[in-house]
Amino acid sequence: MNEFELIGKLIPTLARNSSLVLGAGDDCAVLDLGIPDKLLLFKTDAVVEQVHFTTGQPADKIGRKALGRALSDIAAMAGDPVACLVTIGLPADFQEDVVLEIYKGINGIATEFNVAVAGGETTTSPRGIFISISLIGTIQRDRLIARAGALAGDAIFVSGELGGALSGKHFDFTPRIHEAKWLASNFQIHSMMDVSDGLAGDLRHILNATGVGAELLGPAIPISRAAKLKTKSESAAKPPLLAALTDGEDFELLFTVAAADAVKVLDGWKKQFPDVKLSCIGKISSQPGLTIRDKEGVRELRVHGYAHLENS
Amino acid sequence: MNEFELIGKLIPTLARNSSLVLGAGDDCAVLDLGIPDKLLLFKTDAVVEQVHFTTGQPADKIGRKALGRALSDIAAMAGDPVACLVTIGLPADFQEDVVLEIYKGINGIATEFNVAVAGGETTTSPRGIFISISLIGTIQRDRLIARAGALAGDAIFVSGELGGALSGKHFDFTPRIHEAKWLASNFQIHSMMDVSDGLAGDLRHILNATGVGAELLGPAIPISRAAKLKTKSESAAKPPLLAALTDGEDFELLFTVAAADAVKVLDGWKKQFPDVKLSCIGKISSQPGLTIRDKEGVRELRVHGYAHLENS
Repeated sequence: MNEFELIGKLIPTLARNSSLVLGAGDDCAVLDLGIPDKLLLFKTDAVVEQVHFTTGQPADKIGRKALGRALSDIAAMAGDPVACLVTIGLPADFQEDVVLEIYKGINGIATEFNVAVAGGETTTSPRGIFISISLIGTIQRDRLIARAGALAGDAIFVSGELGGALSGKHFDFTPRIHEAKWLASNFQIHSMMDVSDGLAGDLRHILNATGVGAELLGPAIPISRAAKLKTKSESAAKPPLLAALTDGEDFELLFTVAAADAVKVLDGWKKQFPDVKLSCIGKISSQPGLTIRDKEGVRELRVHGYAHLENS
Repeated sequence: MNEFELIGKLIPTLARNSSLVLGAGDDCAVLDLGIPDKLLLFKTDAVVEQVHFTTGQPADKIGRKALGRALSDIAAMAGDPVACLVTIGLPADFQEDVVLEIYKGINGIATEFNVAVAGGETTTSPRGIFISISLIGTIQRDRLIARAGALAGDAIFVSGELGGALSGKHFDFTPRIHEAKWLASNFQIHSMMDVSDGLAGDLRHILNATGVGAELLGPAIPISRAAKLKTKSESAAKPPLLAALTDGEDFELLFTVAAADAVKVLDGWKKQFPDVKLSCIGKISSQPGLTIRDKEGVRELRVHGYAHLENS
């Protein structure tokens, strides 16, 4: 049983009640608590030493990343973040400076996005540090954007550049809160999520949600400088396009809009966010499946990454 | 720097915003999100293998405990729990049955208290399992009960029986959600919290919040059968009263009301909850400090437990 099979087995068993608008399976849970014009977004996300960061990395950056990841999920639904709680598991021999530094990073990004750090707890961890963040936010009832909603013919967009995030960006990324709110306020965004596990894998969640497919345009995929540099300096590195498709931790927005809106979205974005790239990387097709087109033709993208190109 | 000093250093640095009604330092954070007649309660709580449970204990009970602890904190503010998210950290060699069993326990108690399990995540843990629960709830704006509010002359009450919870009750306790709501609906409860770290330590949080003191009545403190049995079977066990004062994981309600209401609270409770003990265990005094009275007189209760009795 892999993780997705396990989740598939678990989801039907989960307890539900009348407040639940959208449960497990999207970037955030969505709840109706009776706020007149808004729904509540609810997210939890953990980073673990030796998994999401290594011993000796700057503790303030680890804190920033921990909250930043959850903020990226609020952005993925075009929400406004409101307040977080912080749970830190610490080995018995922890140094208090590390905790203060972690909180420094958390408070920094919290202040940047007007999020209250409403409390939390520290507990003992048998090995290494873990930080679990809970975050709530709100979204206008008529502006909720979920993963489900992509229609055949939609243009597919991605913000920023992809690949090679572990070279540095995974500590310094900016959650696309402002960009997502602007999108939701000005356009009919059909579906949206954040790219955190790699474009090739994450796009499938959008496709599966409405049973559609997609054709990506290889040369249109924005490859980060870090991914390109890595290929030059490490002989064993993935080819840059493969890195852009399968590396994780990009924390960029992936969304679809009707083809008729595509140019308006691109033009508006350039004026509004001149420093953040936006790329139209392909289109949604009615035929399920994920393909990629380049000068050599159209090929299937395998399930767990980019096996065809990898072998070519 | 001990944990409380560290928290004291952290709290003033935490990011705030206009939604925050009550931040770090109470049983739950309290937020105003614009629900017309309600405030939002927000809580996170983690259990860690080798700290809160040991390898080999039944996974469904561990799941039940994880959510039960957070529910007890919602009860401590007389709230209605609404929805939770579950983060589980698992060693690389985990068995999926364990995850399914943990969720079985979580879903069981969630259904019991009409809580939606709105999602969560599984992540890798370098050693042992941890479960971090995020829980939101609501409370009528005019019925919020915090730790602060105890007045000189108040009667001090505690539900259930205390001590020896690790013999079994820590896996099977019932969060006092219904009892707390009934209290808040029918009486002016001045202050309330849940007893999770031991009565002697926890009561101090109520006292410090308004700068008052308390005199406990030794013979009135409800000692659990488990604590009494332990004394008989283990020569090194704490005396039962000491166990009731300092053992953790009781998850009972501790609250204060005006002395004039004390008899009404006791009589009403007996009719409403005939199976749950309620004890009046002392009174709030204007003089700071915590003392205990028994047939030998009045003695000071030391900060970290019950040192005087321990030595007698």
